[in-house]
Amino acid sequence: MTVDAELARGRDWAIETLQAYLRIPSISAQKTGIGDAVGYLERTFGELGCEVRRLTGGGNPVLVATAGSGPRSITFYNHYDVQPPDPLGEWSSPPFEPTVRDGKLFARGVADNKANLVARLAALRAWSGKPPVRVTFFVEGEEEIGSPTLARVVEGSADALRADLCIWESSYRDETGRPQIILGCKGMVQGELVVRTAKTDAHSSRAVILPSAAWRLAQALACCRQGDDITVAGLCDACVEPDAGEMELVRQIPFDELEWRRNFGVDRFVKGLTGLALVKQFFYAPTFNISGLTSGYQGAGHKTVLPREARAKFDIRLVPDMEPGDVVAKLRRHLDANGFTDVAIEHVDGYPPARTLYTDPAVTWVEDAARGVWDKPTITYPHMIASGPMYLFRRLMPCIGIGVGHAQSNIHAPNESVYVEDFHTGARHVSRLFDVMSGAS
Amino acid sequence: MTVDAELARGRDWAIETLQAYLRIPSISAQKTGIGDAVGYLERTFGELGCEVRRLTGGGNPVLVATAGSGPRSITFYNHYDVQPPDPLGEWSSPPFEPTVRDGKLFARGVADNKANLVARLAALRAWSGKPPVRVTFFVEGEEEIGSPTLARVVEGSADALRADLCIWESSYRDETGRPQIILGCKGMVQGELVVRTAKTDAHSSRAVILPSAAWRLAQALACCRQGDDITVAGLCDACVEPDAGEMELVRQIPFDELEWRRNFGVDRFVKGLTGLALVKQFFYAPTFNISGLTSGYQGAGHKTVLPREARAKFDIRLVPDMEPGDVVAKLRRHLDANGFTDVAIEHVDGYPPARTLYTDPAVTWVEDAARGVWDKPTITYPHMIASGPMYLFRRLMPCIGIGVGHAQSNIHAPNESVYVEDFHTGARHVSRLFDVMSGAS
Repeated sequence: MTVDAELARGRDWAIETLQAYLRIPSISAQKTGIGDAVGYLERTFGELGCEVRRLTGGGNPVLVATAGSGPRSITFYNHYDVQPPDPLGEWSSPPFEPTVRDGKLFARGVADNKANLVARLAALRAWSGKPPVRVTFFVEGEEEIGSPTLARVVEGSADALRADLCIWESSYRDETGRPQIILGCKGMVQGELVVRTAKTDAHSSRAVILPSAAWRLAQALACCRQGDDITVAGLCDACVEPDAGEMELVRQIPFDELEWRRNFGVDRFVKGLTGLALVKQFFYAPTFNISGLTSGYQGAGHKTVLPREARAKFDIRLVPDMEPGDVVAKLRRHLDANGFTDVAIEHVDGYPPARTLYTDPAVTWVEDAARGVWDKPTITYPHMIASGPMYLFRRLMPCIGIGVGHAQSNIHAPNESVYVEDFHTGARHVSRLFDVMSGAS
Repeated sequence: MTVDAELARGRDWAIETLQAYLRIPSISAQKTGIGDAVGYLERTFGELGCEVRRLTGGGNPVLVATAGSGPRSITFYNHYDVQPPDPLGEWSSPPFEPTVRDGKLFARGVADNKANLVARLAALRAWSGKPPVRVTFFVEGEEEIGSPTLARVVEGSADALRADLCIWESSYRDETGRPQIILGCKGMVQGELVVRTAKTDAHSSRAVILPSAAWRLAQALACCRQGDDITVAGLCDACVEPDAGEMELVRQIPFDELEWRRNFGVDRFVKGLTGLALVKQFFYAPTFNISGLTSGYQGAGHKTVLPREARAKFDIRLVPDMEPGDVVAKLRRHLDANGFTDVAIEHVDGYPPARTLYTDPAVTWVEDAARGVWDKPTITYPHMIASGPMYLFRRLMPCIGIGVGHAQSNIHAPNESVYVEDFHTGARHVSRLFDVMSGAS
């Protein structure tokens, strides 16, 4: 019997395995269901003939399962934890009771990313647990809380994880229905700019002679941005310009400006950009976002207070080849050079961007494996605009994201879903990838 | 028997009347004790032989009580409402159980300003309710919540309130122990600068192409201040420079820079000012204070959000002859001229400054009446740095603040107090003022 026939016979197994997995409320932020999810996956991996180990970096367990053999190797990165389901009232069916409606399977975590892992398991099962490549599953349980212990685990198991290709956790059909093949994600630096001018708040009448933390913060911020342009000296020195081939990929990416403007209620984009220049900005520009401003009185009405402290929370999205430490150092130097030595940069953390070049042979394997499998041609994205811990794996091997979500999968939101048929198609894509990488096709 | 002897005999009456008044928790912000305070004052005014009327502008009642006759007239402005007493745990004795310790009477509202009213009543009583000037008491009940209905009441009774002099609610010994005679207060404009850039918050990765309310607000603010200088064009066009005589008053005002720097934990004042230039700034400069900054995420840690809205609450203290409407119009024009037509100015209210010139004959009456009464010479302040609704009365007559507080009276704070002896001395000051104004001395 062919592998494709095994896949077709295994559809019931796949959907039942997924539904049982979805019923476990494995919410890392709320510390529920972690043990149940780990136990369920250990049993399932075992039943498929994998060798399973538990690793830990001090947080929730990481499962590493291996199977198969062959000339090439592949590592799958997934996570078994999911976002909290609130607001519960907005779900049409309970988040941990998987429900099929209109061809879609609804449940918390189905798109992000339980269906992706089970589709990969279904592919393994179609090969009777013996694919013609060496397969390693890496499933962590803290992705939704920022993967605080992931670096320790990956660095401690680098040799075991290194492979010819890492398949990243998830991907989605874009707004035109084309399945995305994603070659990277942005990095991030988070922190707070803090100004403290006095040891106590004062009555606002005293602002006539006392220094003001809030004004000082506004001035410090203003020296970092002119109109829509980031003016932090040298911040983008390491930014890599896309080459002609990459721009060709960018040109094919659909971007419905009217829909974006309508969704967010904006009448323009930054710098008045439109067309290809806008899409290029989307993928290749860093951000310097203010996520929170806090000083003084926050309630209704007025309070006559001179606040002693002012804070701006920020996140900076990094594009290749920006590095978190270098970015923070440049921000510090820029503030100092503009006289803001009194403005502290606090609570900094971050990680670098990661990408696999479109010219990498691994990209061809993934694209080739998809050919004729999906109902529409795949589309290759050089980046996501979001960030993730992909860099830990990218240091070891090429990383490429594929998955079974769609443009309205509602990840991190109520009524998360994937199309049931996409779930099965995704399994076939992975099964074909084993074949392609083994050199048999 | 002389009036001074009557005052001495009336000390017990005065302190008992004050203590009974202090036991009433007349907190306008919490709507408690209002009826009790009004009833208590009505009875007390009646017992002193006054004619009493209740007025209202739609809020808490205003009491107007009249007595005496003579060639000149005097109006006293006071309020029967007090600040809430929290934090209760920091009071050494309960806020509404007046307690004497170390020569000081402690209770909520004793300095601001129940002791001042009762000292004035004690003076009236020493004149057997028949002082040689026409006396009008005006006692409102909403001062601590911003006197929202006061303008209506004052404008509706202008003819009855107009007199040769208005004695304002309160004053304090300064840090060297000299009783202050206060000739004015600053005005104020409060409002919010608001930037709205989208109809919804967005994931912060989208800041790469979507406009940012927080950055826009920081930039708009920064165009209003350069270093410590307000740069709103024309804002201070109406500011009046003190003349040589006023500067002579300013020169006599004690200002302990070291103590201020220590109290607030600052190492410098705005613009690096010191000495006379600092004191002049204190009284004669407007402020443009940011009392609150709010945008996006306010909690611990980070949230990757692009906020759709950013707000800066502000208060601008006005010096003579700045006008609220003119100041707001100039702020609007300045923002527009700098391209910030999208920054709204909302929730605006305010009132103008008020002052009585040091050359006004009424100042001499108050200064003369104090001579030999207090243990230290009085000191005349051209302004307070705080604001108040004095302008409503200043339109009708000269307004001068005197009172029985001291430099550590802790108004609006736990353990509010006045010295018992200052309370009795304050009564004698008012009693002498009746005499001086009648022309008899």
